[in-house]
Amino acid sequence: MSTEMNTNRPIPVVAYGLGPIGLRLAGRAARLGPAVKLVGAIDIDPARIGADLGALLGTSELGVTVQPTLDVGPAEEDRGRGVILHATGSRLTDVAAQLLAAVELGWNVISTCEELSFPTLTDATIAKELDARAQANGVTVVGTGINPGFLMDTLPLILTTVCTDVTRVEVRRVVNTDHRRRPLQQKVGVGMKQAEFESLAEQGKIGHVGLVQSAHLLAHRLGWDVLSYRDEIKPVITEHAVQTTLGPVPAGDVIGQQQWAEATCADGRGIRFDLQMSYGAADNDEILITGTPNLHQRVEGGVNGDAGTEAVVTNLLPVISQAPPGLHDMADLTRIAWFGGTSHPNGNR
Amino acid sequence: MSTEMNTNRPIPVVAYGLGPIGLRLAGRAARLGPAVKLVGAIDIDPARIGADLGALLGTSELGVTVQPTLDVGPAEEDRGRGVILHATGSRLTDVAAQLLAAVELGWNVISTCEELSFPTLTDATIAKELDARAQANGVTVVGTGINPGFLMDTLPLILTTVCTDVTRVEVRRVVNTDHRRRPLQQKVGVGMKQAEFESLAEQGKIGHVGLVQSAHLLAHRLGWDVLSYRDEIKPVITEHAVQTTLGPVPAGDVIGQQQWAEATCADGRGIRFDLQMSYGAADNDEILITGTPNLHQRVEGGVNGDAGTEAVVTNLLPVISQAPPGLHDMADLTRIAWFGGTSHPNGNR
Repeated sequence: MSTEMNTNRPIPVVAYGLGPIGLRLAGRAARLGPAVKLVGAIDIDPARIGADLGALLGTSELGVTVQPTLDVGPAEEDRGRGVILHATGSRLTDVAAQLLAAVELGWNVISTCEELSFPTLTDATIAKELDARAQANGVTVVGTGINPGFLMDTLPLILTTVCTDVTRVEVRRVVNTDHRRRPLQQKVGVGMKQAEFESLAEQGKIGHVGLVQSAHLLAHRLGWDVLSYRDEIKPVITEHAVQTTLGPVPAGDVIGQQQWAEATCADGRGIRFDLQMSYGAADNDEILITGTPNLHQRVEGGVNGDAGTEAVVTNLLPVISQAPPGLHDMADLTRIAWFGGTSHPNGNR
Repeated sequence: MSTEMNTNRPIPVVAYGLGPIGLRLAGRAARLGPAVKLVGAIDIDPARIGADLGALLGTSELGVTVQPTLDVGPAEEDRGRGVILHATGSRLTDVAAQLLAAVELGWNVISTCEELSFPTLTDATIAKELDARAQANGVTVVGTGINPGFLMDTLPLILTTVCTDVTRVEVRRVVNTDHRRRPLQQKVGVGMKQAEFESLAEQGKIGHVGLVQSAHLLAHRLGWDVLSYRDEIKPVITEHAVQTTLGPVPAGDVIGQQQWAEATCADGRGIRFDLQMSYGAADNDEILITGTPNLHQRVEGGVNGDAGTEAVVTNLLPVISQAPPGLHDMADLTRIAWFGGTSHPNGNR
């Protein structure tokens, strides 16, 4: 019932990073017309620079030429309304300069950078600077996606809305990698030798990024102090030779990963995530909440992560375009559950 | 990362309506101390007026005496922060004067009034006045609860966040009335003769209130035009004599209700609700979304409606205390899903 803030102008959008996820985001933005208008596309791949974005999307010409860098802000009348859909990297230190540059040009940013989903945990200095510059420029920045961003943090948090007390949250996600994009299959080790996987795991160079962010976001918004956090990743080894969409994998080699994380919190509270992503696994998403009342929620057949990320990111377009300036997390944009703690989930709005 | 707006003062709360749900709300508010402070209690029951609220809650004395009417606003420094937890009736016309009076006194209001959950549909004139007076007084009003308010509207809407297109939403809720408060058992006809039930059903005097609101809230937020809406209610008849918590029911009499609603929307879109509330039914909550992708979500064993309403209402306390002034619905307070329509769900923020 508040004053209508819509204009008839579309939300101007720039697709920044044109890998498989970036192209999905751009494709959805194109389909969201006339509410949305693609006005730019950025990628570092020399083979793509100069191409029309429509050619990369397999659609008709869009009149948007891929550029190597982001150099211009939105039109003056769209300052604070324009949005960058950012999908270039998982690590905050790798993308911080890109985010800051976008903010200085007057763009809101929705990024799939996993470490941006709970940025103060990842790097408080970068988070503070991003927040300050976003506020100074009147724009909003958020890191999101299906996971982190929704299935292991926002959704369990939303479900706790029906609880008057919560002591434990467990999330179990099983992903059949054959239903996912090729870079994700590679990222989780499909086709690797076991020794190679274990070496990369020791160096922290393999596995899903974001469990630690989701766990701390949940704990923070539930008002829980994290006493200790542990996670572990192991390869899933195939007993028989299999034919994955990435290629054949002989018996004894890796067809994916099994990862778990556990946050032990004050007052006996805790968070547990189990994430299996492997060839042939049975897609499933489950959330178990121990509390008043207990809840056992399941999405049968799971949520496809690539389609889901496309949806979560692009569905935020009008939200981000109208949100208060600053660096936010997904819980800032949802605001329901609360358990009376002094650090309550909506305290910073 | 926005400026911290917490104060160290508790949120002052008045419990307005002290039936089973109102007492649950008051009890939770009492337990939420020191973040919340009960400062008033209102009920029309002469047997309760003058009693200490603690006596009604079965706790120690709270220093809050039950009054027949709401006469005072929050303390000056808490104007716009104080919240009425309002649970006196399902029908908007029955409670509009109470809501307006609360707003004029400077209280935010969270009400379990089912028809307030999508108020413009119920009575656009009352909704407009409430919104205007809430804005004039710098306070926020929302109608919510588990259903309407969460399970059949907010939750499916939140789940569509992972979709890029939705054509149909179905929600199925099954409630074992023996697990619910006595007034609800009476409200759905447990122990009635079939003829009495059917006569009351014809007069619209029996059955769950709120399906039409949930359906229209969902349609509105999905950007769908409702072309037609139908609902129907039928008694559930027991074949054998049963012993319910409300008393014995002989074979051939009513042990609850079966209700369905269907909203047919433009462009082949639609919403379907099935709600069974009866003695001995197997508690269950399911949401089926047809779209990209399809989703089949289930809360195994369902969500208890009385506990759930207590949670949904009281968990909103800090949200309502900080929300923009005006009359809102639950989707105003969540703001995620969006499908590019011009009447997009977040358009009015």
